[in-house]
Amino acid sequence: MSNKTNQQWGGRFNEPTDAFVARFTASVEFDQRMYRQDIQGSVAHATMLTEAGVLTEEERDAIIQGLSEIQQDIEAGRFEWSIALEDVHMNIEAALTAKIGITGKKLHTGRSRNDQVATDIRLYVRDEIDLILSEITRLQEGLLMLAEQEADTIMPGFTHLQTAQPVTFGHHLLAWFEMLSRDYERFVDTRKRVNIMPLGAAALAGTTYPIQREITCKLLGFDAPAENSLDAVSDRDFAIEFCAASSVLMMHMTRMSEELVLWTSAQFNFINLPDRFCTGSSIMPQKKNPDVPELVRGKSGRVYGHLMSLLTLMKSQPLAYNKDNQEDKEPLFDAIDTVKGCLRAFADMVPALESRKENMREAALRGFSTATDLADYLVRKGMPFRDAHEVVGKSVAYGIESGKDLGEMSLEELQQFSDTIGADVFEVLTLEGSVSARNHIGGTAPSQVRAAVARGKSRLQQRV
Amino acid sequence: MSNKTNQQWGGRFNEPTDAFVARFTASVEFDQRMYRQDIQGSVAHATMLTEAGVLTEEERDAIIQGLSEIQQDIEAGRFEWSIALEDVHMNIEAALTAKIGITGKKLHTGRSRNDQVATDIRLYVRDEIDLILSEITRLQEGLLMLAEQEADTIMPGFTHLQTAQPVTFGHHLLAWFEMLSRDYERFVDTRKRVNIMPLGAAALAGTTYPIQREITCKLLGFDAPAENSLDAVSDRDFAIEFCAASSVLMMHMTRMSEELVLWTSAQFNFINLPDRFCTGSSIMPQKKNPDVPELVRGKSGRVYGHLMSLLTLMKSQPLAYNKDNQEDKEPLFDAIDTVKGCLRAFADMVPALESRKENMREAALRGFSTATDLADYLVRKGMPFRDAHEVVGKSVAYGIESGKDLGEMSLEELQQFSDTIGADVFEVLTLEGSVSARNHIGGTAPSQVRAAVARGKSRLQQRV
Amino acid sequence: MSNKTNQQWGGRFNEPTDAFVARFTASVEFDQRMYRQDIQGSVAHATMLTEAGVLTEEERDAIIQGLSEIQQDIEAGRFEWSIALEDVHMNIEAALTAKIGITGKKLHTGRSRNDQVATDIRLYVRDEIDLILSEITRLQEGLLMLAEQEADTIMPGFTHLQTAQPVTFGHHLLAWFEMLSRDYERFVDTRKRVNIMPLGAAALAGTTYPIQREITCKLLGFDAPAENSLDAVSDRDFAIEFCAASSVLMMHMTRMSEELVLWTSAQFNFINLPDRFCTGSSIMPQKKNPDVPELVRGKSGRVYGHLMSLLTLMKSQPLAYNKDNQEDKEPLFDAIDTVKGCLRAFADMVPALESRKENMREAALRGFSTATDLADYLVRKGMPFRDAHEVVGKSVAYGIESGKDLGEMSLEELQQFSDTIGADVFEVLTLEGSVSARNHIGGTAPSQVRAAVARGKSRLQQRV
Amino acid sequence: MSNKTNQQWGGRFNEPTDAFVARFTASVEFDQRMYRQDIQGSVAHATMLTEAGVLTEEERDAIIQGLSEIQQDIEAGRFEWSIALEDVHMNIEAALTAKIGITGKKLHTGRSRNDQVATDIRLYVRDEIDLILSEITRLQEGLLMLAEQEADTIMPGFTHLQTAQPVTFGHHLLAWFEMLSRDYERFVDTRKRVNIMPLGAAALAGTTYPIQREITCKLLGFDAPAENSLDAVSDRDFAIEFCAASSVLMMHMTRMSEELVLWTSAQFNFINLPDRFCTGSSIMPQKKNPDVPELVRGKSGRVYGHLMSLLTLMKSQPLAYNKDNQEDKEPLFDAIDTVKGCLRAFADMVPALESRKENMREAALRGFSTATDLADYLVRKGMPFRDAHEVVGKSVAYGIESGKDLGEMSLEELQQFSDTIGADVFEVLTLEGSVSARNHIGGTAPSQVRAAVARGKSRLQQRV
Repeated sequence: MSNKTNQQWGGRFNEPTDAFVARFTASVEFDQRMYRQDIQGSVAHATMLTEAGVLTEEERDAIIQGLSEIQQDIEAGRFEWSIALEDVHMNIEAALTAKIGITGKKLHTGRSRNDQVATDIRLYVRDEIDLILSEITRLQEGLLMLAEQEADTIMPGFTHLQTAQPVTFGHHLLAWFEMLSRDYERFVDTRKRVNIMPLGAAALAGTTYPIQREITCKLLGFDAPAENSLDAVSDRDFAIEFCAASSVLMMHMTRMSEELVLWTSAQFNFINLPDRFCTGSSIMPQKKNPDVPELVRGKSGRVYGHLMSLLTLMKSQPLAYNKDNQEDKEPLFDAIDTVKGCLRAFADMVPALESRKENMREAALRGFSTATDLADYLVRKGMPFRDAHEVVGKSVAYGIESGKDLGEMSLEELQQFSDTIGADVFEVLTLEGSVSARNHIGGTAPSQVRAAVARGKSRLQQRV
Repeated sequence: MSNKTNQQWGGRFNEPTDAFVARFTASVEFDQRMYRQDIQGSVAHATMLTEAGVLTEEERDAIIQGLSEIQQDIEAGRFEWSIALEDVHMNIEAALTAKIGITGKKLHTGRSRNDQVATDIRLYVRDEIDLILSEITRLQEGLLMLAEQEADTIMPGFTHLQTAQPVTFGHHLLAWFEMLSRDYERFVDTRKRVNIMPLGAAALAGTTYPIQREITCKLLGFDAPAENSLDAVSDRDFAIEFCAASSVLMMHMTRMSEELVLWTSAQFNFINLPDRFCTGSSIMPQKKNPDVPELVRGKSGRVYGHLMSLLTLMKSQPLAYNKDNQEDKEPLFDAIDTVKGCLRAFADMVPALESRKENMREAALRGFSTATDLADYLVRKGMPFRDAHEVVGKSVAYGIESGKDLGEMSLEELQQFSDTIGADVFEVLTLEGSVSARNHIGGTAPSQVRAAVARGKSRLQQRV
Repeated sequence: MSNKTNQQWGGRFNEPTDAFVARFTASVEFDQRMYRQDIQGSVAHATMLTEAGVLTEEERDAIIQGLSEIQQDIEAGRFEWSIALEDVHMNIEAALTAKIGITGKKLHTGRSRNDQVATDIRLYVRDEIDLILSEITRLQEGLLMLAEQEADTIMPGFTHLQTAQPVTFGHHLLAWFEMLSRDYERFVDTRKRVNIMPLGAAALAGTTYPIQREITCKLLGFDAPAENSLDAVSDRDFAIEFCAASSVLMMHMTRMSEELVLWTSAQFNFINLPDRFCTGSSIMPQKKNPDVPELVRGKSGRVYGHLMSLLTLMKSQPLAYNKDNQEDKEPLFDAIDTVKGCLRAFADMVPALESRKENMREAALRGFSTATDLADYLVRKGMPFRDAHEVVGKSVAYGIESGKDLGEMSLEELQQFSDTIGADVFEVLTLEGSVSARNHIGGTAPSQVRAAVARGKSRLQQRV
Repeated sequence: MSNKTNQQWGGRFNEPTDAFVARFTASVEFDQRMYRQDIQGSVAHATMLTEAGVLTEEERDAIIQGLSEIQQDIEAGRFEWSIALEDVHMNIEAALTAKIGITGKKLHTGRSRNDQVATDIRLYVRDEIDLILSEITRLQEGLLMLAEQEADTIMPGFTHLQTAQPVTFGHHLLAWFEMLSRDYERFVDTRKRVNIMPLGAAALAGTTYPIQREITCKLLGFDAPAENSLDAVSDRDFAIEFCAASSVLMMHMTRMSEELVLWTSAQFNFINLPDRFCTGSSIMPQKKNPDVPELVRGKSGRVYGHLMSLLTLMKSQPLAYNKDNQEDKEPLFDAIDTVKGCLRAFADMVPALESRKENMREAALRGFSTATDLADYLVRKGMPFRDAHEVVGKSVAYGIESGKDLGEMSLEELQQFSDTIGADVFEVLTLEGSVSARNHIGGTAPSQVRAAVARGKSRLQQRV
């Protein structure tokens, strides 16, 4: 093995690599997933070298044909990956040379593994971002559909997990929609900085061959070539930024998950998750556990961790490439897989949520959720807000003691605390009255929810 | 004290707040720095309430006058902050009421502390981002100036901190410029998501008053009102995103700092930092320590930590506002202060860096930095790259043994390893030949450095 | 100012420190809190120098007297801290010299700021750990008291936040007690590694003066002098380990807080938090928010962040001291303050928790919490567990449909699913039967809870 | 597949698990590595159940025989892992039942997956800690050996990466030894808290079977059974504490790595790493890169990340077990693998380090490393330290200008700055004089290094 390895760079070395070190430093086990991008990059590089007069057309065609066969071998599971060949790049190059002879070696002219790997990983991340964007959209579509259905469903809105004011369930779901909209934008912004081409930076300083970077740039769909070769081979911002965007997304998913877990508890019982998204217990026959939101909530940790991992990795590295950077891939790949898996699970599950409207309504009726409405009522009757607050506070204290919510008290009971209160008070103490009155952009009124759904649909359509 | 506090919300409470709890939960010590934004938001809110017919013009004017006086009091150091009043918002509101009486209490109509604080903090962050953007630009201007001066200065380029190929010092500085360009873009992207207005979300569900959010939005310079009230009061993405952008920036600064520390060491001795940016030792009289880059490098930790802090904070919070969120401010504020301080220190220091050109050149001459050029030379003479690599590897091994760099060997010595080598080899073995040959966009050739500086200047100009 | 500063190390410098740099690199604003430890260390050092013949007894006495006066000045608020003097150490040394003249300068003989600061910070952390240990114990005492009171109170035990099996509230509180016991042990273990003396390491290599480290070690109550001077001045493990122990503690407090927040929600309503630990809302008069647990939950973020901050700080630092290390203090100090504050708030609050036994019991009766008991009953009657699980699963499905819990079904209804079920089944379906049957060490039976409380008390006593 | 899965808990479920959800929630791909511990735990559990009269001796023997065969199958690669069976526990249980029939199902009596998995993972971590402890010791042995060899080798000691004072290379290596000693202790302390037995906690509340936890505790080598069942199934402190200890260890390894990378650079050139621990470049024939320390340095990120991952995971989880906890394993396992790999690589490499004594000495001669000795000399002649500092500072300034180190100046040159300087000054300006004078415990004098090596050896021996 070491002999093979050393063929790539062995001239000045007196002894083969230690066997453990060879394994310890190899990356092929995790970087082979970039094989398509590696081949795509090589095809573009060969095409450019031909334009630049460095390769003949025959050489180019042999290379492209060889790479195409290698890709088929890999996809058919026929390709033998070798740890001795360190990484995906050397494995493919060695296979190419085995296939087409000396011409295969010419492919590496005017590039280095440093710019090659940086190019591959950007192509890979770009592809994955596109998949993630479409999964976010799918989840958002589900939310819009559900929000429209639930535009009139009333539930308690919480602050501090205490009943605050009645809201509509559709409105609550649209809060999730907004979170995901920002996530979408962040990935779009990240993609701009991913889609810059390092190829041509060579080892660190550029190359003495007459390369034409604008050709490879165009062939590979990059927005622009990287402006500086030292930066191009050592920049891993895009991986960090991807993990930062993913961390915020995962944070959002923990919030949704937390609520789903609460809402499926016996105490809340606001929704039902279909059995197919739950599992049971080996010991407790009655259990039906909301595994999917729980697991998604737990998976936030790994993505946060990967973000921290990459930030730590890059701290204090002098330019340009250092071997440390090989450690960029596993956190990044796992973040990608995690985000895709969680989005898929949610996009499948969310449209199947079943609301338990009666329980939601019942909960909204308890907890003095219309206390603010009573205060606003008094203000409209001319009482200063601070005094109104005091009146309502006392009514609530009475309600706690007597076990009655505000809407359940008689007019006489209410008038104990202020004779400003009239018979028209009961309108504002209804749940419907409360939510309908919050009728401005961003408010919880059913009509606002429907308008927001319509705007949301139009925003999703503009993405295409 | 507790009496005072309870005036805000005491109606249903039977006992005053515990004294330690009052201190433990108060935020005024760190949120008072947002007083300007709080007043700015209140002025806009009062103006809108007047348009909406909720306040009279006289009330509005009294409020604005009162707030203006309070701002003057604060800025003159005359304002007495009270922990009993919990936060900056209640402190200012109480002072306003003390000044103008019952009208002061009306200011809070149609809003809640939840949307008020969310608005204030966004205004604050927006202002600070603008300062940060201008400091990044100032630092980049310094780098462009220096890069232009050093376009022809040759130094060793490193990978793995081993001498790799000669580069120009100007080219190296432009790698820093590129890092900062991405930072700039990230803050600009973050700013888009900061500049969304929560005001009008009230406690969580919107308000029953006839507010007109488009008015406050315009008055405060926000791009748009937040689409969903539940999301508006519970979203802290912008703080996380700010800290993520700051973490990447700080990571970049650790890389620059690491290099500055290396370059000022006796072993490298590539640059001199003026004495005013260094400190000495109380015990070792010869010491001149590069404190500024060291401290900046160390400060990366706190910004990474704040990012993690905020991600942790938001994990698993159900909607909408929870008291946990009060913990968003200190990490955010310290990240802001740290980033501004580090940028300022670097923007002041970078233009004063003095290169030690002879030492750089000397180092580039050692370490076989033109070995790749020799290999490329052999390839141009028709030798396959892999064989050329082997020939050069052996020449290097000979050089290590004999203590000679490639350019110091005689033609006969070089020809030991391949008779393809001719007298013209010495051209490519010069440092100047090596750097000039990397003459494509992104390459290290002096002419490319100058072109990149010109493009950089034009990019900076487009920012204004 | 810069003149003053430069007196400490200015001989080789040509220009004063830049004013911004002086502020940027000063630490006195946050390290002055170590003044007591700094003086304590200096007294011990002076005493040792006298034993070693470096100072006379008169000099020692003058120094000790001077330092004692300085301490009084500081504690009386009379001391003027100067940023120009950088840090607490130089401020005190300058004040001493101002007070007692040239003898003051001799105090620094045989030590350096590097070992001085490392010594001070260890003394400081040691003192704070002792305070934290006693607050943990106080909180644990409250838990034991409450657990004893609630040994018979039945509540639903949850897994996946779904009702799992009935448990006793006392048992649940003892789970918290166990978490805190591990925290206590971790701080004790951390303290061992804190309590090692760097003094004598001088700048990095030891000193040429005839110091006797065993004397200072004993005077300062350290367990041993640090074995290696390079390590002694550059080790910050103890700060990281402190933050790691603190992070786990804070994690535990988030779990307790989460449960307190759940339990005070209208949906659970298992406990009441006295008003003095809660706050209200400026806009919603009915609100009583569990601010303390929420804020504690949120404060986990800052401690996690500080841990990450210090790990980042130390990454890749070459030996020995670097200026980066100045950044160790603020995260550490804030972690200390946060942990102490949170423990205090909880130790005050926990004994005042009021359980709502009826609500807990009612919740335990719902949710099929005795399903496992029914399965165990069938196994005892000879049915394989897997079959019993199936029988109970079907009974539960029937219960969901018919709205009855297992204990509410008639014998006939139960026998639909298996005729193995007899009239004695109702014993195991009672809550009391269920909890009492889990009667082994660690189990939830009331008798086990009482035994665990007794063991817990004895463990706490052994601490003293 | 779903049919199979549902056999474990399907009674109350109306539809099979969604295929993607089944994959998404399965853990067998990563938890199968605990198969030995799972079997070990089951054997102990079966043995205890027999003692307790729940199983017959024949049943126990059949179970043990069956598990033994399964272990052989797994180790021979013959075992077929099924994702449908979710995890390692269900896979083994299903295989056992397939082998020995209904008796296999009885094994699960009196336990649950919740306590089973918690037990397995603790057994696994305990085993791995023992391996890690022995690798730390091996690395420390290498350091002691090398430190002894290099007790007299003089190199520059650095602070701020500026030459500070001469130290011995052996002394520097012993600083590394001390870091690792603390790591060893931390893992020993962690092991105490790992080695507590959850088994018997069952799902969360204990079990109704007459289990005897002291029997399983003894059979499995645990120190004690967990005191509280709710805590036992939900505690993951040990995993976090393991990752915290690992993070500090990795931090230490970044510091060593950073120094190795510096020392192998052309600029320092203090050591040689044997070729077998290095790799070359595909493009630059002269390169010999210190891959092992670079990669180890980079791997710190993943371990820091895993720590953060687990802290995040556990934040705000209510008791007892939640599905989130399944996410504890991958970070933990990867931390274990990383730490073991890095220790192995270093333990192999460190004894092979070759110092370049001449270069070290040469570097120590430059940089005014004996400036402190000159100041101490003047103090001994009666000059106040502050004045001595000034004199030396000026001498250094002269030296920088004239290109002479202190030891290279003539007596006349030195006397320019103070006539206190006599001919005996040259003794203290030698490197040997400087290091030998730091002759106290922890100091850099060769005799102290040898004494420290001897103490170190004795400390290692006491571990056995």
